[in-house]
Amino acid sequence: MPRQPQPIRSDIACSTPDRITVRGLDLPGQILGRMNLGDFAYLQLTGQAATPEQSRLFNAVVITLVEHGITPSAIAARMTYAGAPEALQAAVAAGLCGLGSVFVGSMEGAAKMLYAALPQGTQGADLEALASATVAAHRERGLTVPGLGHPLHKPIDPRTPRLFAIAAECGHAGDYVRLMQLIGAEAERASGKSLPINATGAVGAICCEMGFPGHIVRGFGVMARAIGLVGHLLEESHSPMAVEIWQRVEDEASAHLRGTGQD
Amino acid sequence: MPRQPQPIRSDIACSTPDRITVRGLDLPGQILGRMNLGDFAYLQLTGQAATPEQSRLFNAVVITLVEHGITPSAIAARMTYAGAPEALQAAVAAGLCGLGSVFVGSMEGAAKMLYAALPQGTQGADLEALASATVAAHRERGLTVPGLGHPLHKPIDPRTPRLFAIAAECGHAGDYVRLMQLIGAEAERASGKSLPINATGAVGAICCEMGFPGHIVRGFGVMARAIGLVGHLLEESHSPMAVEIWQRVEDEASAHLRGTGQD
Amino acid sequence: MPRQPQPIRSDIACSTPDRITVRGLDLPGQILGRMNLGDFAYLQLTGQAATPEQSRLFNAVVITLVEHGITPSAIAARMTYAGAPEALQAAVAAGLCGLGSVFVGSMEGAAKMLYAALPQGTQGADLEALASATVAAHRERGLTVPGLGHPLHKPIDPRTPRLFAIAAECGHAGDYVRLMQLIGAEAERASGKSLPINATGAVGAICCEMGFPGHIVRGFGVMARAIGLVGHLLEESHSPMAVEIWQRVEDEASAHLRGTGQD
Amino acid sequence: MPRQPQPIRSDIACSTPDRITVRGLDLPGQILGRMNLGDFAYLQLTGQAATPEQSRLFNAVVITLVEHGITPSAIAARMTYAGAPEALQAAVAAGLCGLGSVFVGSMEGAAKMLYAALPQGTQGADLEALASATVAAHRERGLTVPGLGHPLHKPIDPRTPRLFAIAAECGHAGDYVRLMQLIGAEAERASGKSLPINATGAVGAICCEMGFPGHIVRGFGVMARAIGLVGHLLEESHSPMAVEIWQRVEDEASAHLRGTGQD
Repeated sequence: MPRQPQPIRSDIACSTPDRITVRGLDLPGQILGRMNLGDFAYLQLTGQAATPEQSRLFNAVVITLVEHGITPSAIAARMTYAGAPEALQAAVAAGLCGLGSVFVGSMEGAAKMLYAALPQGTQGADLEALASATVAAHRERGLTVPGLGHPLHKPIDPRTPRLFAIAAECGHAGDYVRLMQLIGAEAERASGKSLPINATGAVGAICCEMGFPGHIVRGFGVMARAIGLVGHLLEESHSPMAVEIWQRVEDEASAHLRGTGQD
Repeated sequence: MPRQPQPIRSDIACSTPDRITVRGLDLPGQILGRMNLGDFAYLQLTGQAATPEQSRLFNAVVITLVEHGITPSAIAARMTYAGAPEALQAAVAAGLCGLGSVFVGSMEGAAKMLYAALPQGTQGADLEALASATVAAHRERGLTVPGLGHPLHKPIDPRTPRLFAIAAECGHAGDYVRLMQLIGAEAERASGKSLPINATGAVGAICCEMGFPGHIVRGFGVMARAIGLVGHLLEESHSPMAVEIWQRVEDEASAHLRGTGQD
Repeated sequence: MPRQPQPIRSDIACSTPDRITVRGLDLPGQILGRMNLGDFAYLQLTGQAATPEQSRLFNAVVITLVEHGITPSAIAARMTYAGAPEALQAAVAAGLCGLGSVFVGSMEGAAKMLYAALPQGTQGADLEALASATVAAHRERGLTVPGLGHPLHKPIDPRTPRLFAIAAECGHAGDYVRLMQLIGAEAERASGKSLPINATGAVGAICCEMGFPGHIVRGFGVMARAIGLVGHLLEESHSPMAVEIWQRVEDEASAHLRGTGQD
Repeated sequence: MPRQPQPIRSDIACSTPDRITVRGLDLPGQILGRMNLGDFAYLQLTGQAATPEQSRLFNAVVITLVEHGITPSAIAARMTYAGAPEALQAAVAAGLCGLGSVFVGSMEGAAKMLYAALPQGTQGADLEALASATVAAHRERGLTVPGLGHPLHKPIDPRTPRLFAIAAECGHAGDYVRLMQLIGAEAERASGKSLPINATGAVGAICCEMGFPGHIVRGFGVMARAIGLVGHLLEESHSPMAVEIWQRVEDEASAHLRGTGQD
C-alpha cells in the first residue's frame, strides 16, 4: 500500500513576477522604508504587524541578546573565519551552534517554567503561591531556577530593571513579569544567596507577556547573536585574534607531550 | 626561540558588575528602548550610531534579505529541526551554511565589482566608461555580471526601484547606484537579454554607498536570514513539511534500486 | 581579586619539526599504512590501540551508521551544497546539525538506559528483573524505550542480529547485549506490539560492552555520517537533486498564497 | 506554462523491510564484520570495493587528516560543546565549518593544480616542463603554490615521504606524485626558500593518482576531521579547556575598555 502524500504548505511568503508578499504585506510597498528590522522580525514570526508598544519592547528584547563580548560563540566564529574567510556564513553558523542549554537555553527554560506555572490565559492566580511552589519544585529536584543569578552582574543585572521598565511602559508587565520577580525573591530567600534576575530571566518573562511559545524563545537569541557575530567577524577581518589564541593554546596544551617526545 | 605573544583585543563591548557597554554606549540606558534592531546592528558593525537616513536605509537593506520563501536554506533548516528540535540553534546554523556563492554571494560580488571599478573616494569618474569596461571585462572572461537578472522577477525586480528610491530619499544614491544602473543597462545592450538589477545588485550598490567593505556585505544576508529562518522553524514546529518532503524524496530517489533489490 | 588561570592541556597529539605523535604513537611510522580508519578512530578516542576483536567490532559499529539513504540529514547537506558548492565543509556541517534527539539520539538513549540499569562493573545482576523494571519505568512515564522499533524494518532490523553476532564472535556480547534483548522482549510483551531492536539499540548495547561513555555514543553516529554525507555531496555534484526538490516544494508550498496574490 | 518536473534519483543505497543495500552490497551480510571503515568510505564514494592496495592507501590518506592537534577547528568545536553539550553533533559541525581555503583547501588546490597541468589519461607528458610552467604561472600571478611549505615541519614534513612510500608500495606513485615532487623542487629553486611538500600536497597528489575528482578531495579532510573532533569533544567532556580559554581571552580582549568604562 503506497504512502498517501500529505500537502506541503507555508503561509509566510510568496512571489510572482512583479510582487513579493510577506505575511500578506507587499514587501517593497508596505515594508521597505517603513518598518525597522525588529518590527519585520515580529511580522515574520507572528504574522502580525507590531503595535508601537510591541515594536519598542520586541526590539529591546532582541537587542539585549545581540552582543555579550568575547563569548565562546564569538571565539568559535572567529576561529572558523580564520580557516574559511571565504565562507563567512559558515563562521556565523559555527558561532550559533553553541547557543544551547548552557547560555541561551536558560531564556527558554525561564519561559517554559513561567508557562508551566501560569498557563496562557490564566486569570487571578495566586502568584506568590506559584512562586513558592516553583522554587520548591526546583530545589527538591536539585535544579537551578532558570533566569536567576549571574557570575559578573551582582547584585543586579543592569539589563533587567531596564527591560522590565520598558515592558511596563509598553503595557506588557503583567503576571509573568510579576511571577518572575516573585520567583527571584523566593529563590534568594530559600537559598540565602544573591540571585538577581538576569537578562535571560527578564527576556523569558517578557516573551511570555508577549505570548511567544516557549520553544521559539531560544530563536530570539539565535537571530540576535547572528547580528552580533557578523560584527565580530568584521572586527576579526581587520584586527584578528583567532590565530594568536590558537598559537597560545596549542603551545600550552601539548607542552607536556612535546617535552616527552623530544627526549 | 619561543614565540612572542601578540595582544588580543576587541573594541566592541565590555562589562563590569554594574555596566554593559557596547561601542561606547550604555546598553540599558542609551540603547534599550531607544534603538531599533537595525540601528543596533549598524552600531555593532560600524561603531557609529546611525543617522535617521542611515537608519532608514540600512533597515530596508537588511529587511530585504530576511525572507525569500521556501529556499534551499529554509529547507535545510527545517530538515535539521526535524532531527534535532531540541537544538534550534543548530537548525538555524544549518540553514545559514548554504548562503554562499550561488545565492547571497552575488551581493558581495556586486559590491566588490563596484569598488573595483570605482575605489572609495573617487571623484568625477566617467561612470559610463567604467560601466562599459566592467561589462566588457566580464564578457571577455565568460563571467556573469553579479547583481543582474532574476529567474522570476522580470522585467524588473520590484525590490530594486524601491531600494534605490529609499536610497535617494536618504541621500545615498550616488555614483555607486548610478554605476550599477549603467552596468545593468550596458549588460542588457551587450547581451540582448533582459537583465534587471536584482535585489542583490541593489543591495550591493547601496552597501558601497554606505561605505561597507565588500567582504562583510554577505554578512548582512546572513544576519537577515537568521531572522527569516527562526520564522520558518516556528512554522515548522506547528505546520511541519520536513518529514513529508523527506518521505517523498526518499521514495522517489531509490525506487529504481528497490525495484532491483526486491527481485 | 584577579582570576587565577587554570592550566590548558590536551593529551591527544603533539608535533615537533620532525615528528607527529598521536596518542603516543608516531603517525608516519607506526600508524600510516598499518592501521585502518576505524582503528585510528578507536585510538583517537580511547588512547589505546584496538585489539583485533575490538577493531572488527568497532569498525562494524561505525560502518552501520554511515549511510541511511536520502535522510533529512542528506537533504540538508545537498541543499546547502547547492547554495555554497565552494564550501563543501559547510554542507557536511549542515547535514550533521540534525543528528539529534529524533534519529541518532536513540543510540545515546539506549546506552544511557543500559548503563543506568547496569552500572559498569556490575556482576551477577538479575537481568530479567532489570529489563522488567526498565520497561515499566518507561511505560509509567509515557516514554518510548530507546533503541526499539523501526518504521520499515519489521519484524526484525536486519542489522541487529548481524551486529550481535559479530559482537559475540569478538567476545563482546555480554550483559549489556543480553539486557537489551530482554528489554526488547519485555517491551513487546508489555505493549503487544512488534518492537524489534533497531540498529541504534544494537549499537547502544555494543558501545556499553566496549565501555564507551554514554555521552560520546552519539559521536560515533556523527563521525560516521560525515563520511556518508561526503558520498552524497559527490553524487550531488554530478547528479543533483537539490534544485529540483526546492522547485517542487516552493511551487507547492506557496500555491495557495500566489493564487490570492495574483487576484 | 508550468515547470516540468525532473526525476530525483540516488544510486547510493536502498532499504526494504528485510534488506539494506549500499552500493549494491548487502550491508549486514557483505559489509559488516568484513570491511573496515576506510574501505566502506571508499565504497560509499566510488561505488567500488577497494582493492587491498587501494584500501591501504586510502586508509592512510584519510588517517593523515584526522588529527592535527589543538587547531582552530578543535577550539571552535570545544567552545561550541561548552555551550551546548547536549548537541554534540552541532559542536562537530562547528569544528568542520572552518575547514576552508586556509587549511584544508590547499589539498584541493594541489589536486586541481595537478589535474590542470596533467589531465586524467595523459600519457608521456614532459613532467619537468609542466612543473616549470606551473611554478612560473603561480609566481607570475603572485600565488602560493598549494601543497608546499609548513610553518613547523622543516626541512621535511614527515608525513610526505611516508605517504609517497605507501603510494609506491600500492602501485599508485605515478605521474601525479612525480609532478608534485618536481613542482616542489622547482618552487624551492625559483624562490630560494625551503618548501617541502606538506601533507596536503602529498594527499592532493595521491588523490589524483587514485582518480578522485578535485572538488571532492576537501571532503576527505572533512570526514577525517569529524573523527578527530569527536575525540577532542570526548576529552573536553572530562578535561575541559574551553571555559578557561574563554575567560582568559575575554579578560584580555576588553581590558582596555573596562579600564575606561570604570573611570
